[in-house]
Amino acid sequence: MKKAVVLYSGGLDSTTCVAIARSEGYEVYALSFSYGQRHHVELEKAKTFAPLLGVKRHLIVDIDLRAIGGSALTSDLAVPKDRDLDAPGEEQIPVTYVPARNTIFLSYALAWAEVLDSFDLFIGVNALDYSGYPDCRPEFIEAYQAMANLATQAAVEQRGRYAIHTPLLQLTKAQIIQRGAALGVDYRLTHSCYDPAADGRACGRCDSCQLRLKGFREAGLSDPVDYVRNEGA
Amino acid sequence: MKKAVVLYSGGLDSTTCVAIARSEGYEVYALSFSYGQRHHVELEKAKTFAPLLGVKRHLIVDIDLRAIGGSALTSDLAVPKDRDLDAPGEEQIPVTYVPARNTIFLSYALAWAEVLDSFDLFIGVNALDYSGYPDCRPEFIEAYQAMANLATQAAVEQRGRYAIHTPLLQLTKAQIIQRGAALGVDYRLTHSCYDPAADGRACGRCDSCQLRLKGFREAGLSDPVDYVRNEGA
Repeated sequence: MKKAVVLYSGGLDSTTCVAIARSEGYEVYALSFSYGQRHHVELEKAKTFAPLLGVKRHLIVDIDLRAIGGSALTSDLAVPKDRDLDAPGEEQIPVTYVPARNTIFLSYALAWAEVLDSFDLFIGVNALDYSGYPDCRPEFIEAYQAMANLATQAAVEQRGRYAIHTPLLQLTKAQIIQRGAALGVDYRLTHSCYDPAADGRACGRCDSCQLRLKGFREAGLSDPVDYVRNEGA
Repeated sequence: MKKAVVLYSGGLDSTTCVAIARSEGYEVYALSFSYGQRHHVELEKAKTFAPLLGVKRHLIVDIDLRAIGGSALTSDLAVPKDRDLDAPGEEQIPVTYVPARNTIFLSYALAWAEVLDSFDLFIGVNALDYSGYPDCRPEFIEAYQAMANLATQAAVEQRGRYAIHTPLLQLTKAQIIQRGAALGVDYRLTHSCYDPAADGRACGRCDSCQLRLKGFREAGLSDPVDYVRNEGA
């Protein structure tokens, strides 16, 4: 059985990504990070959900991105709420961008893949319904893959070629949800909110909640998670 | 004054790299990692030496590469000693290779550079007198630079282009030492050994000690650090 390392945050996209990798016949090694994010709701859901998703092993690596800073997700900067994501002025990359986050996450995935003798990495990036992060774009992924194939002993010794799989890249959020639902993903056990309440409920107002709620609406499904203020599920 | 992020381990190469960046007029932001390496002699020297090198800021980031494993430098595997580095059979990549280490280190350097609004990264890789690590080769560095220029908000917004400087790439160890000595680097305060004694003295027998001792011999200088078994200084 081929092994794949799947970046898995416990969010909607990465959970769907695990289900897709499994459906394609991979033995899934799920990789999460405790990176100084402002809350651990997502990571707790990831821990709980991993065994139910048929993950072979779930590794949580401690890395400290707070020391680097520069993002609302790793500092005390306020998370923007109630932005109109369709307004022209909102096309800027928001403060929830974490500098080089996917670059760092993929680097660990590459390291683990090399140790596992795996050449397949999955990342749930999405170039349509997303927040405009540069490290979610196809040209970034292609450049990363080219670099990975020069970076490791496994590649240099030609034991294989790394492929970075991005099954969600060209899907809308609604299509991602439909795909996951068809694969039996229970979205109740995923978390997307950047700024949940103390009891873990999603805020319903940050970019991530807005994109999720819009996705469920367009998919014609109701979002099973609890919101403090549920704008459309 | 232009800012540069310099990967700085406290070893001979990276310390020389800091001195070179300074000599080229950069304000140096030195980045070290506590990554589960088997000893902290190098990191302690890095802390001590950083202010003497005129570093603007020295950041040590905690990352756990032990969770990933796969190397003698992050596990209990034995460090090879007394290898004949010129023998044909010794061309394999040794067990001291850490999977994707430079990929991971550069990713943090990129993140910090973005936060600092710097576009210059320095890494003391060397393609001549080295241990055959794939992530020390020029083709890896070029691919990394191409990826970096697609990875970040700063690049996408065209605030600058990242350059990964590798001033030691085509130098022999002897030339590196001569260059550093000319810039006033006191090599007494650097550490290279993979497997030092409890008192911090270098073993004189691992690949890193062998390359260092050979470098000093060929440079016509004596290595000022203490060895348990000094084979040529």
